Amino acid sequence: MNTMTSGKVESAVDTSRRRFLGNAGTVALFTGLAGAADRGARAAQSGAQSSGMSGLTSIATVHTVAADPTRLPPPIHRSHAIHHDIALEARELRAGLADGCEFLFMTWGGQIPAPMIRVRQGDTVTLTVSSAASNERPHCLDIHAVYGSGGGAIATMVPPGGTRREFFKCIYPGAFIYHCAVMGMDEHISRGMFGMILVEPYEGLPAVDREFYIGQHELYTREPFGSSGLLHFDFAAMTREDPNFVLFNGRAEGLTAGALGAMQANAGETVRVFMVNGGPNLTSSFHPVGNVWKRCWPQGALANSPLGYVQTQPVAPGSCFVGDMELPAGETIKLVDHALSRVARKGLMAEIAVSGAADPALFRALA
Amino acid sequence: MNTMTSGKVESAVDTSRRRFLGNAGTVALFTGLAGAADRGARAAQSGAQSSGMSGLTSIATVHTVAADPTRLPPPIHRSHAIHHDIALEARELRAGLADGCEFLFMTWGGQIPAPMIRVRQGDTVTLTVSSAASNERPHCLDIHAVYGSGGGAIATMVPPGGTRREFFKCIYPGAFIYHCAVMGMDEHISRGMFGMILVEPYEGLPAVDREFYIGQHELYTREPFGSSGLLHFDFAAMTREDPNFVLFNGRAEGLTAGALGAMQANAGETVRVFMVNGGPNLTSSFHPVGNVWKRCWPQGALANSPLGYVQTQPVAPGSCFVGDMELPAGETIKLVDHALSRVARKGLMAEIAVSGAADPALFRALA
Amino acid sequence: MNTMTSGKVESAVDTSRRRFLGNAGTVALFTGLAGAADRGARAAQSGAQSSGMSGLTSIATVHTVAADPTRLPPPIHRSHAIHHDIALEARELRAGLADGCEFLFMTWGGQIPAPMIRVRQGDTVTLTVSSAASNERPHCLDIHAVYGSGGGAIATMVPPGGTRREFFKCIYPGAFIYHCAVMGMDEHISRGMFGMILVEPYEGLPAVDREFYIGQHELYTREPFGSSGLLHFDFAAMTREDPNFVLFNGRAEGLTAGALGAMQANAGETVRVFMVNGGPNLTSSFHPVGNVWKRCWPQGALANSPLGYVQTQPVAPGSCFVGDMELPAGETIKLVDHALSRVARKGLMAEIAVSGAADPALFRALA
Repeated sequence: MNTMTSGKVESAVDTSRRRFLGNAGTVALFTGLAGAADRGARAAQSGAQSSGMSGLTSIATVHTVAADPTRLPPPIHRSHAIHHDIALEARELRAGLADGCEFLFMTWGGQIPAPMIRVRQGDTVTLTVSSAASNERPHCLDIHAVYGSGGGAIATMVPPGGTRREFFKCIYPGAFIYHCAVMGMDEHISRGMFGMILVEPYEGLPAVDREFYIGQHELYTREPFGSSGLLHFDFAAMTREDPNFVLFNGRAEGLTAGALGAMQANAGETVRVFMVNGGPNLTSSFHPVGNVWKRCWPQGALANSPLGYVQTQPVAPGSCFVGDMELPAGETIKLVDHALSRVARKGLMAEIAVSGAADPALFRALA
Repeated sequence: MNTMTSGKVESAVDTSRRRFLGNAGTVALFTGLAGAADRGARAAQSGAQSSGMSGLTSIATVHTVAADPTRLPPPIHRSHAIHHDIALEARELRAGLADGCEFLFMTWGGQIPAPMIRVRQGDTVTLTVSSAASNERPHCLDIHAVYGSGGGAIATMVPPGGTRREFFKCIYPGAFIYHCAVMGMDEHISRGMFGMILVEPYEGLPAVDREFYIGQHELYTREPFGSSGLLHFDFAAMTREDPNFVLFNGRAEGLTAGALGAMQANAGETVRVFMVNGGPNLTSSFHPVGNVWKRCWPQGALANSPLGYVQTQPVAPGSCFVGDMELPAGETIKLVDHALSRVARKGLMAEIAVSGAADPALFRALA
Repeated sequence: MNTMTSGKVESAVDTSRRRFLGNAGTVALFTGLAGAADRGARAAQSGAQSSGMSGLTSIATVHTVAADPTRLPPPIHRSHAIHHDIALEARELRAGLADGCEFLFMTWGGQIPAPMIRVRQGDTVTLTVSSAASNERPHCLDIHAVYGSGGGAIATMVPPGGTRREFFKCIYPGAFIYHCAVMGMDEHISRGMFGMILVEPYEGLPAVDREFYIGQHELYTREPFGSSGLLHFDFAAMTREDPNFVLFNGRAEGLTAGALGAMQANAGETVRVFMVNGGPNLTSSFHPVGNVWKRCWPQGALANSPLGYVQTQPVAPGSCFVGDMELPAGETIKLVDHALSRVARKGLMAEIAVSGAADPALFRALA
C-alpha cells in the first residue's frame, strides 16, 4: 500500500449543456457532478411537505441532480493495494424531476446516483461523510463492501452541518451499492441517496472501450405522473410499493436525446454499463433494447464467471449489475426495466446513441 | 446457407376439440394456431372500450386464442446456416378469457403466445409483418434476438392493413421474446402480443422426448376475476402493476383437463418446457408442482451451462425460460408461478398429465 | 439403508425465555418448537373472522409461534442412505404478531417456519401428517423434494383430527420448501404453513461453525401495521399482493435483541443461513447488512456450484436460499429483504449478534 489518492467530490460539470459527453477522456478518481448544486442555487420558496422537509428556507435549487453517466473513475491497472481518501457530502436539493415539475431530492455529492467509488480488492479507504448545513435531516452510509455494523451506518451518522469519518478495507470484489441507512431509509433512497462502490477483483475486469454508470430508483409522489409544480412524497404509496415514477438518475427520461442527452458510443466498440438499483423496493428487469448483455455479472457479483448473452437480467433493489454489450452497428439502444409500464407510464428510459454505419448483413429494413 | 424454409402461419387446429394432442407428430416449421381466428369468426357486436378498441364493427370473435402448447417447430439437426422466410400477422380478436367472459385480445397469428420461431445460431430471416385490415391499432415487433434499433420495432411498424418486411441474422443463441413495441406497448403485450424466437446454439440443445411451449402474461381488467360478459382494460390497474388475471396462453386455467385440455406425456420421458414471460410487468416464479427443473437455463440464456435441480426459477418480464423435467412416474404436474395468489385467485395454471404407472419406490400414499 | 431415525415433533423449548440460545449444542433430528402450543394454551375468546376462522371456541393461544432459528437438525455425516419416520402436526394457533397485537396463525408443529427436515440424497421418509382436533380447516403438504401429484398434497390431505401417511424417496439434492397446498393455499402459507426440507447432496455441504434456519412470509391484514388487538386477514390485500406485514418467523422484528432475541455467533466463525421464503407472493432480496453472502446457492439449488460474494440474492416465493458468511469481527448483522419498505414499515428484521473484538484493520470509526 504505497499510494494515496484524494477523492473529494468536485464541481466539474456545466449543467447548461444538454448533451452528455461521449468522449470525456480521463477524469480524476471520484470526480462527481456536485457542481449542479453550486451553480444557480437559490433558496426554494415553496413546497412544504408533511414528511418534514419544509423546503421553505434553505434547500438549494438546481436544474438537475442527474449524474453524467460518462463521468466515472477509470479502470484500475495496478497490482498493489493503495489507500484512498474520499469525501462525500449529503445535499438535499430541489431539482427538476420531469418537464414542468420539481422534487426535493436527497443526494450524495449533489447527484443521482451518488459518485462512483472505484477501488481494487485489498485497497483501504478513509471516508469523510459530511452533511450540508442547509440540510433538514440526518444521514449516514451503509456500504455493502464494508464489514461493520450497519455497513458503517453508525459510524457515519451525520446531522446537518456535521462530519464523520471511517476507515475500511475492501476485502471482497464486486459492484456494491452504498446508500443512506437512517430510520426511514426507504424514503432517503427513493429521494436519491444511493450510489456504487466498485471493488475490482485482483485481476481486474476485462477491458472494454467505454463505460457508463447509471442508477435506477423509484419515486412515490402524491401527484400523478405528468403533474406540474413541486411534487410531494407519498408514504402510503411507498408502503404499497406503488410508485408514480421509476427513474434513471432522478430524472424522467433524462438520459435521452430529448432531455439531458443520450449516452454516446461508436459502432465497433464494446461498452460496459454499471447499474446500481437503489430501489428502495422494485426489482429491475434490466434489458438493452436492440442488443443483449453479451457478458454480465448478476447482482454485481464479480467474483463469479459472467453469464453470456442474457436478454433481461433481474437486479434486486439494494444491488448492482455490470454488463457488457458489443455494438456491431449504428443504432440507438434503449436501456429499460422490462416491467414495461415503468417505461410507458413512469419515465424510465435511457439511450445509448451508437454512431456508425448500419450493417445490412446483420439487420435491415426491406422495401 | 443453402436451404430456405417457408414459415407462413397456417390454420391447422380444430378449435372444437377440447384436448391438446399429446402426440401431434411432426409439424411444419412455424405452424401456428391461426385457425382459431378463421373459423366461426363473427363481428363483435358490443364491447366499446375507452381505451380506443371499439369492438363495435370489425373485430372477429373466436372461441379461444390459446396456442396449442404442443405445436412448435421441431429441434434442429443441421450443422449449416439457412435462411427463413417467415410471416406474422397482427390480429385483434375477441375471445374467451374464462368461462362466461370474453376479452379483446391482440395477437400475432391469432394465438397467445405468438407462434414460436425456431432457428439456428447464424441463420438469417426475412420477416414479413402484416396487420389485418380489421385491426384498430398500429403494431410492430421488438425481437430480442435482433441487433437493430428497437429490435426492429421501427422497421416493422404496420397500420391496419399494412405490411412491412425486415431482414436479420441471428448471431447469438438463446430463447428470446418478441413483442409488440408501439407506444403503449404494455397494453399490447398484456392483451397478448408476445412470443418466442428460439435461436439454437451451434451445437444444438440436449435431446428430450417431448417439448411444450407456453406463455405467461397478466391482464388488467376493470371487472374483477369471476365477472361475466366482455371485460374491459384497466389502465390504472396496469400502472399499479395490479392485474386481475395472470394467465398462460390468454385463458384462465386454459391448459388444464377441465378446460382446453392438459398437456400429455408419458412416464419415463424427459420433457422440455419453453416458457416466454410477456409480462408486461410481473416476474414469474416458475415451478412444476410435483417435479423439479432438472436442467434449466435462466432467462433463456442458452449460451451458459444449465442449472440443475431448481425448484422455482425467477423469469423476468420480457424474458424466457427453458427447462427440462424427468417424468419418473405417472402423475399430474401443474405448472405455476409460485406467487400463489396468482394461481389461487387469478387463473394461472397449466397441467401436464403424465400417463404411466406410479413408482411406489419413489412415492406412495400409505394406509 | 440400514438405520431408522424417529422424528416426532417434540416440545423442547421454554417459551418464557426471551433470548435464543447461541450454543444449543446437539439437538435431536426434527426437534421442533411445538412446546409453544402446549404451554399456557387457552381458548381464544374473541376474533371471529369472515375468512372462516372463528377463533371462538377451540383455537389455542400461545405467546409466539416463532421458531427458534438455532434449533435445526445437525449436518449429516453419512455415506449411506437411511429411512426417516417423521411426524408433522397442523396446529392453528392464536399468537403474538407484534407488541400489542395477535393473529390467528396456521402452523406445522406449532412453529413458523415449520420444523426443518434434514435428509441425505437417496434417503427415504415415512411422513405422518396429522391435524389437531381443535383446527377449523383442512390442511395438506406439497413438498418440493417429492415426485408425486401435488408434491404429495393429495396423499396428505387431513381434516381436523385426521391423520394420513405417505412414503417418499429424496432423489435430488437441494433446500426445498414444503407448504400447505389446499384450495386457498396462499392464505394458509401467509398464516405460516411452510418450512424447509433439506436434502443434502451425496457429498454433503461444506462444513461451517454454526447454522441458522429462518423463514420469510408476508401477512395481509385489514388493520394497518401498528394496530392493537386481534388482527384479521384481508383477502383483497392478498389479491393485490399488498401486505401490511413482512416477517421472519411470524413475528414482527421477532428475531432481534429487542424482542425474542438475536441469533448469536462469535467472531472468527463461518455461519450458514438456511432461509425458506413461503411468500405466498413476494420475492425476497435477501441481504446481510454489514456482511456479504460469501458463498450461496440461489433458490436452494445445491446441485450447482455456489456463487461467491453476493450482496443481495433474489429468493422467489416458494423457494429457498442457503448462504454462508464469514464473521471477521464482532458486530451486529441484520438480515433483511432489501425491498426496504418491508424493513422500515412492515416488521421484517432479524439480527445476528457476533461476539468478539472489532478488527480495526478492517473497519473502524475515526475521530
